[in-house]
Amino acid sequence: MRNFERVSVDAAVAWIDGATHCLGVEPVPLNQVPGRVLGTDIFAAAPIPPVDSAAIDGFAVRAADTIGAGAYNPLALPSVAVVAGEPLPPETDAVVPLDQAESTNGRDVVLVEPLPPATNVDRLGAAADTGALLVAAGTSLLPHHIGLLGLAGFAEVPVFRRPRVRLAIAGAALMRGFDDGNRPMIGAAIERDGGALSESTLAEALAGPDADIALVLGGAGLGRDDGSAAALASAGLLEIHGVALIPGETTGFGRTCAGAPILLLPDPPAACWWSYELFAGRAIRRLGGRDPALPYPAQAVTAAHKIVSAIGSTEICPVRLCRGGKIEPMPGFLETGLRAAVDADGFVIIPEASEGYPEGASIKVYLYRLR
Amino acid sequence: MRNFERVSVDAAVAWIDGATHCLGVEPVPLNQVPGRVLGTDIFAAAPIPPVDSAAIDGFAVRAADTIGAGAYNPLALPSVAVVAGEPLPPETDAVVPLDQAESTNGRDVVLVEPLPPATNVDRLGAAADTGALLVAAGTSLLPHHIGLLGLAGFAEVPVFRRPRVRLAIAGAALMRGFDDGNRPMIGAAIERDGGALSESTLAEALAGPDADIALVLGGAGLGRDDGSAAALASAGLLEIHGVALIPGETTGFGRTCAGAPILLLPDPPAACWWSYELFAGRAIRRLGGRDPALPYPAQAVTAAHKIVSAIGSTEICPVRLCRGGKIEPMPGFLETGLRAAVDADGFVIIPEASEGYPEGASIKVYLYRLR
Repeated sequence: MRNFERVSVDAAVAWIDGATHCLGVEPVPLNQVPGRVLGTDIFAAAPIPPVDSAAIDGFAVRAADTIGAGAYNPLALPSVAVVAGEPLPPETDAVVPLDQAESTNGRDVVLVEPLPPATNVDRLGAAADTGALLVAAGTSLLPHHIGLLGLAGFAEVPVFRRPRVRLAIAGAALMRGFDDGNRPMIGAAIERDGGALSESTLAEALAGPDADIALVLGGAGLGRDDGSAAALASAGLLEIHGVALIPGETTGFGRTCAGAPILLLPDPPAACWWSYELFAGRAIRRLGGRDPALPYPAQAVTAAHKIVSAIGSTEICPVRLCRGGKIEPMPGFLETGLRAAVDADGFVIIPEASEGYPEGASIKVYLYRLR
Repeated sequence: MRNFERVSVDAAVAWIDGATHCLGVEPVPLNQVPGRVLGTDIFAAAPIPPVDSAAIDGFAVRAADTIGAGAYNPLALPSVAVVAGEPLPPETDAVVPLDQAESTNGRDVVLVEPLPPATNVDRLGAAADTGALLVAAGTSLLPHHIGLLGLAGFAEVPVFRRPRVRLAIAGAALMRGFDDGNRPMIGAAIERDGGALSESTLAEALAGPDADIALVLGGAGLGRDDGSAAALASAGLLEIHGVALIPGETTGFGRTCAGAPILLLPDPPAACWWSYELFAGRAIRRLGGRDPALPYPAQAVTAAHKIVSAIGSTEICPVRLCRGGKIEPMPGFLETGLRAAVDADGFVIIPEASEGYPEGASIKVYLYRLR
């Protein structure tokens, strides 16, 4: 049996934060940036719109010419048909909506009320002056950010490089066939967190070139199946083996020969999952310039029943929403494994020093779904 | 000028819902299902775990043999080292944790207290009995769902087919170069909503084979730039042109020659965006078996200031969070275009018949970010 000294979850998180720093940025074409994270602040290089433009489809006129128009004094004015977004023609400064104008010959419009200047006009710089901050560094790019960047003339933008994540299967996990959910589960989570996944052998993962982080599934145990931990201790550097986390107790933390962080994730599926969520996912999110926090909406919710936890380990407790928008605990990960995540609405993280929460307490709950 | 009769947003949504129905399902390997939507309920084909298994790394013993063990009566028992997840060896029914056992020869353990049967054992079927519902149809597959499905032995699962979305650029939009953000913006949104995007000409989009839905960017206007609407009216079927939505008023709805729904999105970027969000995105989400609602968390928030809207059109109003967790309105989409989305924390949808909300009202707000 290997030496096994459990550290606190806080200490393990501090190790992660010390071992991972935001990677550099790279330019990427706008149609390939969905879900990427902006690497620098982006400022407007020119005003948006660049000139006074029609805000709607209609007829461009000179506002001064419309003075005096009325129901009893319809004015026929020269005009130019314009399309929303089109620069205003010279000498015009207002746009008559199509349904408020009659144009018998396609050129003149007949107006029955005066138009103030700039009516239905997007003024030069109305959306942004030159130098205005358009999108801030660190923003996970949503479609409307991409639309504004394209409108501002950017064909590509600097985004944080995707962390190269090397994933190795080892130990007992290597022997299993289809009935192994850990690999597709962790692969999906790496994708969610913006990592670029490549699979390799344990030996390649320990060597560590061309990877920003390595993860090993299996062989992180304490007994017979501790091959990954033993190999890391021998070939690289095993700095921590064991965390006061339930589930996830046998997680290992170290360095590959190339100096990259390497994490050993436990084999039992629920332990593998929470070890990923609290440590590996955080590392990948930090490397990629993302918010390191758990990627779930969190809110304060009232406990409908007492929630119990043993002192000495941080415990992840599955919960479900019940009457009145409160939460109640469910059979835990030690009892039903991953099913405790699938059947739950969310989870609570109960700190090491806590025995849990009494009925009626307000608790921070992470929810899997928005609604 | 084409005939232009605005319908209500509700009527346009009803058109979408009538024109789109959930596509069929297809089997997809587990490592390719992240973000896909499960097409059928999945039940356990066998118990999980399939046999009594070790819950932790340790030594398997027969609980009955441990009776009588105590601090003054340490018992040396034959045992087998087991790894978490491994089936219990014959004749054993409990597992001694590594740190509670001494094993000098790797076979016998010395116990100083008795162990109840099933201690540290995952009992056959503890996570799921045969026939238990594992993951329900309609679930957007998160990593932990994938993990459980893999653990249950599924190498692939039935998921809803991705809607094939044909995107055409037409009208004035076709003339622009890099300074067009609509195309990458709508491309990102189609990806977000699970669509499989292919680009085509307007003529191909109007013909409509091999697509579940077609979207046309540009040429949806009312004036000179109404080419897409005119072409659809001539080659296919233009059923609606004009919605009481600000921004997004000139959206068109119709059928391709092949009978697929086709939407014409207005050219001004903010109008293009909201037309996508309320109509096109809903159609794609419905086709793919997703929740048709807007993909943003919604919650009731108090208005810090009055929010004003004109009667007669549904209006999207950008809002930001301010002191005390309340919201206040910001310069709108008609004033600053897409920047009103980028600078805002979220938005409010003000119905056609409403003049807005007084200060202090509780309003449903959609937020762009979780926190």
